[in-house]
Amino acid sequence: MSNKIRVTVWGENVHEHKHAHIGKIYPRGMHEEIAESVRGSAEFEVRTATLQQPEHGLTEKVLEETDVLTWWGHCAHGDVEDKIVDRVQTRVLQGMGLVVLHSGHYSKIFRRLMGTTCSLTWREAGEKERIWVCNPAHPIVHGLGPYFEIPHEEMYGEPFGIPMPDETLLISWFEGGEVFRSGCTWKRGNGKIFYFRPGHESYPTYYQKEVQLVIRNGVRWARPDAARWIDNCPNIPIEKAPEKIRPQGEALHKPGEAGFR
Amino acid sequence: MSNKIRVTVWGENVHEHKHAHIGKIYPRGMHEEIAESVRGSAEFEVRTATLQQPEHGLTEKVLEETDVLTWWGHCAHGDVEDKIVDRVQTRVLQGMGLVVLHSGHYSKIFRRLMGTTCSLTWREAGEKERIWVCNPAHPIVHGLGPYFEIPHEEMYGEPFGIPMPDETLLISWFEGGEVFRSGCTWKRGNGKIFYFRPGHESYPTYYQKEVQLVIRNGVRWARPDAARWIDNCPNIPIEKAPEKIRPQGEALHKPGEAGFR
Amino acid sequence: MSNKIRVTVWGENVHEHKHAHIGKIYPRGMHEEIAESVRGSAEFEVRTATLQQPEHGLTEKVLEETDVLTWWGHCAHGDVEDKIVDRVQTRVLQGMGLVVLHSGHYSKIFRRLMGTTCSLTWREAGEKERIWVCNPAHPIVHGLGPYFEIPHEEMYGEPFGIPMPDETLLISWFEGGEVFRSGCTWKRGNGKIFYFRPGHESYPTYYQKEVQLVIRNGVRWARPDAARWIDNCPNIPIEKAPEKIRPQGEALHKPGEAGFR
Amino acid sequence: MSNKIRVTVWGENVHEHKHAHIGKIYPRGMHEEIAESVRGSAEFEVRTATLQQPEHGLTEKVLEETDVLTWWGHCAHGDVEDKIVDRVQTRVLQGMGLVVLHSGHYSKIFRRLMGTTCSLTWREAGEKERIWVCNPAHPIVHGLGPYFEIPHEEMYGEPFGIPMPDETLLISWFEGGEVFRSGCTWKRGNGKIFYFRPGHESYPTYYQKEVQLVIRNGVRWARPDAARWIDNCPNIPIEKAPEKIRPQGEALHKPGEAGFR
Repeated sequence: MSNKIRVTVWGENVHEHKHAHIGKIYPRGMHEEIAESVRGSAEFEVRTATLQQPEHGLTEKVLEETDVLTWWGHCAHGDVEDKIVDRVQTRVLQGMGLVVLHSGHYSKIFRRLMGTTCSLTWREAGEKERIWVCNPAHPIVHGLGPYFEIPHEEMYGEPFGIPMPDETLLISWFEGGEVFRSGCTWKRGNGKIFYFRPGHESYPTYYQKEVQLVIRNGVRWARPDAARWIDNCPNIPIEKAPEKIRPQGEALHKPGEAGFR
Repeated sequence: MSNKIRVTVWGENVHEHKHAHIGKIYPRGMHEEIAESVRGSAEFEVRTATLQQPEHGLTEKVLEETDVLTWWGHCAHGDVEDKIVDRVQTRVLQGMGLVVLHSGHYSKIFRRLMGTTCSLTWREAGEKERIWVCNPAHPIVHGLGPYFEIPHEEMYGEPFGIPMPDETLLISWFEGGEVFRSGCTWKRGNGKIFYFRPGHESYPTYYQKEVQLVIRNGVRWARPDAARWIDNCPNIPIEKAPEKIRPQGEALHKPGEAGFR
Repeated sequence: MSNKIRVTVWGENVHEHKHAHIGKIYPRGMHEEIAESVRGSAEFEVRTATLQQPEHGLTEKVLEETDVLTWWGHCAHGDVEDKIVDRVQTRVLQGMGLVVLHSGHYSKIFRRLMGTTCSLTWREAGEKERIWVCNPAHPIVHGLGPYFEIPHEEMYGEPFGIPMPDETLLISWFEGGEVFRSGCTWKRGNGKIFYFRPGHESYPTYYQKEVQLVIRNGVRWARPDAARWIDNCPNIPIEKAPEKIRPQGEALHKPGEAGFR
Repeated sequence: MSNKIRVTVWGENVHEHKHAHIGKIYPRGMHEEIAESVRGSAEFEVRTATLQQPEHGLTEKVLEETDVLTWWGHCAHGDVEDKIVDRVQTRVLQGMGLVVLHSGHYSKIFRRLMGTTCSLTWREAGEKERIWVCNPAHPIVHGLGPYFEIPHEEMYGEPFGIPMPDETLLISWFEGGEVFRSGCTWKRGNGKIFYFRPGHESYPTYYQKEVQLVIRNGVRWARPDAARWIDNCPNIPIEKAPEKIRPQGEALHKPGEAGFR
């Protein structure tokens, strides 16, 4: 790890170009505004990557040099190549942090790491969302009051088809009457994962300072703890067993052979 | 659900035919001896399925009629078709229980549901394994004493690359000096998952009564709680919001449109 | 365990006698209406107990014969004797289920089992509460739709000072703008614990059929799995170690001596 | 928080004076050797406190100035005053880290925070203990190999009567045949708790460099994340509700009144 937290902000970068009203809200692309959340603080080193770039901008080298990846996607989840998803998953399990934003709940990478449907209920009515803090001392909510409001957002409602989070940090109240677990954390392998609900493309959510604050805190929280751990199912030869043992019974594997996968 | 717990025991069914010493231990196939764990009790209705059958014996109809699936595989994990893995995952998320045995830790379905590497360390020396109970009152260990021993087993050692289990029920002590979390539970969607370590094909482990008892208890524990829940990310139209709201801002989705996946 | 689930419904039984408007809502006492939730189904055997009875109605014998205890208290938490709290805690750790209702969040027994403050924010305005189901297939919510409403309730809001629940099953939306984790489960020792938010004494909440349904489901879910496990920190004498060992070094404890507590 | 992590090492300080062979191993007292684990690194500021001091050395001021408290006790758990235990619990819930060592599993403070019996099985035979790492990338095990050994230790065996840990980091293998979850973490309120098994008074365990390393890592891990959060169950007056509501139904509490405890 470098001393700076190296952040890659990944954006699908499609809606901005297809829908005039979205292009008007995010003329530089949504990923650029998400990147603004972490830019400007000396502790981060930030780059962006998008679906349209070769290897979606997520080459081996880029991921190798990424401490925390943020992910926003929506209409083009299916266009993300499986081999890139494999690569991102491998890096998360090694320790790269992952901050999944809004409709990223249905991305291949999030569903892959959760193992569940990640489904939810939804409504696009531009209604008010009020986001409550469940644990005021957690570093991800540092700097927030008891709650903050987003004037116009898409509604996401329970049930949210996720494995029980390690910690439920934020719960949303919607004007239309629903609730949602809007800030959740998990650990998979060495990687820390933070899901943060807001950010529908039709509204200027990523310009709001509380949303930027939570993203910045989430990225800081998700940074790797330690040197990577490579998972590879190693064989421990009999002569290297901590206690002296002698082989008994017939063996299937020859000495030094790798296991089946 | 029928009144009986409908169990499908899935076996890879390869080693028994390729290795004479394994064929001698399990002349009827490993899956038949695993099925014996649950047969003979009036509360279960048991069938077996193997890799070699059409659709690996796991047709839509078979899975539809399965309350709990047990899974043993080793050398042919890669031969299991992805579309069958998709189908099994869907059924687990709907509520079908899954009991994963031994080298099944590296099966596609277990890795899919965990989202992690599921790697571990291992040694094939026919050494003694002693399995300790961490929670004597859990239904999965009902009928066991403080521990039981398997005279000859393959060693699996920590680190085990899994998400933190909901409950760690069994921990193994190996003669060669290692330890392993040998009985772990998780919930994914509505499905309950139990991983149980023992059962290397080179030893007659599945004939041992404590191993059979744990499998039987595990199957009973993993049965579905309730009617299935179909996950499908439903849209909640504005006029059906619990609170009266009016649409605000521009919308991306047309009324009644399905979400992106 | 008998075949029936033996339920003891504990009520503080103070407000009903001190406040005319509460006595009018619950002329038979709140505990009697809570008991109605489980009465009338042949699977339960129900009794009530109150603060004013000798030993608060929770003698050794009563607890011995209780599979699941429900707890409602509010203004007199401090009057519950510590030795009775000790006794209830012991039984929960042995396997007795505990369903904690509403203001019971601040009872000695709940705080004892959680180890945390169990604090929350609150407001008594008779506002509407809508309770959402986070996991539609869990047995505790069996029979509910996506949500149910209580027309007038006290508000409880986040942050709720509890250890992360094993499962968050219900989340409330309040008319005044707050949210709350209203249905949570934990396991402590062999005992299952379910906290269920509704039930302020000023409103006829316990007459509502969805509330009664959740209590009934919660009691069924919390029943003990298996024979009790007595925790007593047993010494394993050297000659009973599973592996043959000889004592080394000086010992503090004499053979057969109990450990320090 | 100061820039340094302010550590208070608490020792019971009884065995060293009562048992000659223990006094010989720890002539300066066990707490002084435990303190050595963290002394000498510029990132910590270390003091010790013992049972015999006024208020057991844990005055309001001392705790106020403590970021992380380590706890070793054994034969005199019962002599720790309840009001000091209350005070320590309050500080943990506010965010003070707590590292509980060995026989501290039966201390009032650990049992208070767990809510369970914290019982286990044990044997004092000076046998070999081998401690395995379950998650090599966790900061608490940073610097360890796959395992380390302690030549002579007391045995602690499963079942360990604790709530499921947030993370099981270390598992012990004992020469006599048992296993134990030797490194476990929990969060209670804002406080992080780490239990670390080794350290029987009859052996020079706290001089061993791997044990010191784990204690030092554990203290660093347990430091508070953020400014404290005071839990006090605040009333939210109707006029301060986020949404405009009007009171409905009769109220029990008068405006501004505190809740019952």
